Amino acid sequence: MSIEQNDSNNNEYSLSSQEKNGFYKAIFSRRDVRSHFLEGKDIPNDVLVRVLNAAHHAPSVGFSQPWNFVLIKDRTTRNKVKESFEKEFQKSILSLDGDALRQKKYGSLKLEGIMESSLNICVTYDSTRFGPFVLGRASVPETGVYSVCCAIQNLWLAARAEGIGVGWVSILSIEDLKKILSIPLHVNPIAYLCLGYVSEFAGKPDLEKANWLPRLKLNEVIYYENWGRIHEKGCWLDFSSAVRTLEEQ
Amino acid sequence: MSIEQNDSNNNEYSLSSQEKNGFYKAIFSRRDVRSHFLEGKDIPNDVLVRVLNAAHHAPSVGFSQPWNFVLIKDRTTRNKVKESFEKEFQKSILSLDGDALRQKKYGSLKLEGIMESSLNICVTYDSTRFGPFVLGRASVPETGVYSVCCAIQNLWLAARAEGIGVGWVSILSIEDLKKILSIPLHVNPIAYLCLGYVSEFAGKPDLEKANWLPRLKLNEVIYYENWGRIHEKGCWLDFSSAVRTLEEQ
Repeated sequence: MSIEQNDSNNNEYSLSSQEKNGFYKAIFSRRDVRSHFLEGKDIPNDVLVRVLNAAHHAPSVGFSQPWNFVLIKDRTTRNKVKESFEKEFQKSILSLDGDALRQKKYGSLKLEGIMESSLNICVTYDSTRFGPFVLGRASVPETGVYSVCCAIQNLWLAARAEGIGVGWVSILSIEDLKKILSIPLHVNPIAYLCLGYVSEFAGKPDLEKANWLPRLKLNEVIYYENWGRIHEKGCWLDFSSAVRTLEEQ
Repeated sequence: MSIEQNDSNNNEYSLSSQEKNGFYKAIFSRRDVRSHFLEGKDIPNDVLVRVLNAAHHAPSVGFSQPWNFVLIKDRTTRNKVKESFEKEFQKSILSLDGDALRQKKYGSLKLEGIMESSLNICVTYDSTRFGPFVLGRASVPETGVYSVCCAIQNLWLAARAEGIGVGWVSILSIEDLKKILSIPLHVNPIAYLCLGYVSEFAGKPDLEKANWLPRLKLNEVIYYENWGRIHEKGCWLDFSSAVRTLEEQ
């Protein structure tokens, strides 16, 4: 049967135009949120269940589902995580000594919402889950961690679809996090996320708006048939025009 | 303003019920596809551009956008990748010596669609992009790779929304892949994906259907406030009921 031409909502294989729009809306308006959290506005239980269930339906190597979600509201715990952020942030600022301009800009950015968000989630990777033999993981053991990252992106997008902002705090010490949350040796924290309703989803990523870095053009990240090949020809000629058309819009 | 209560399609912050349904449809019906590819049915250029643009709009640490997408149709290249798969698959089968039952089951599974799919994409990570200082990457350098995985998941979901199946081939040698695609030393292949229209999206993941492993219950992957804490109390009591309600559905 033809999949992409069917526009019916009831077809199990295809998304209607409106459904597709909804999907792309979540993709393109998802933001890494550090400000704009609405304090005191909790996430309803049914909404949080949907968001975590979306994460749990991510792909995983050998169907190993190697993730856990530690849900954190406790303010004492959060304070400890915030202290770890502060320590790592100071280290990071020092590493920019010699580039006063970037150092100043970096120092002025809001980079986490640990205390203001309504909920923190630590997403972890357990390499022993269903192991030691995990189907498809032998050649590239890192695919276990990659699975957890796919779950994180599902969570992030589902939160966006529900109107909830998510911020990934990457400036902190994994060792601190393991101690604070009593995470055992064989488990690794992959992400520390801050979730909450927000007053707005910005039109562009914060770092793009702040002129920290520009967004690359799509054709700058595409190669044809082999690494580095950009002078596309043959069957790729029309495709590369289509990429340029998108960029001129 | 209230975000989650607004059901209008025109509100830039909220998704309508139908839009949300479309989003969750993509999340829950996405599959790792190895069979069911429709041979000879190409992906139109505008559709492929949308899928890659969705990938390019993933979050990335410090807005570093460290990904590249090598698009591969050439059958000679694909044959070489298939040979790498065969080699690694044989190694992997041997590692199950001593467990004849699982070995037989493993050997009977279809694990890649390299030649039957319409397009292969190698997604890579370039740690030097916009470097050496990447904002937010100093404490946890792996966040660079994590960003690429988020892009892969965006690609996978967008493909699903477009009715296109994606299979991630994790049984192959990264070294082989780097040689075959002339990928430089400082760049790392993260995923090798096979894309194409499919005759169906299975109701459940192949490995779940084949009774290779069961899907974990959602409450088995959730902890409260600290690693290992499942006897939820206080503010988590109602939430844990909501998780159980979902599982009884």
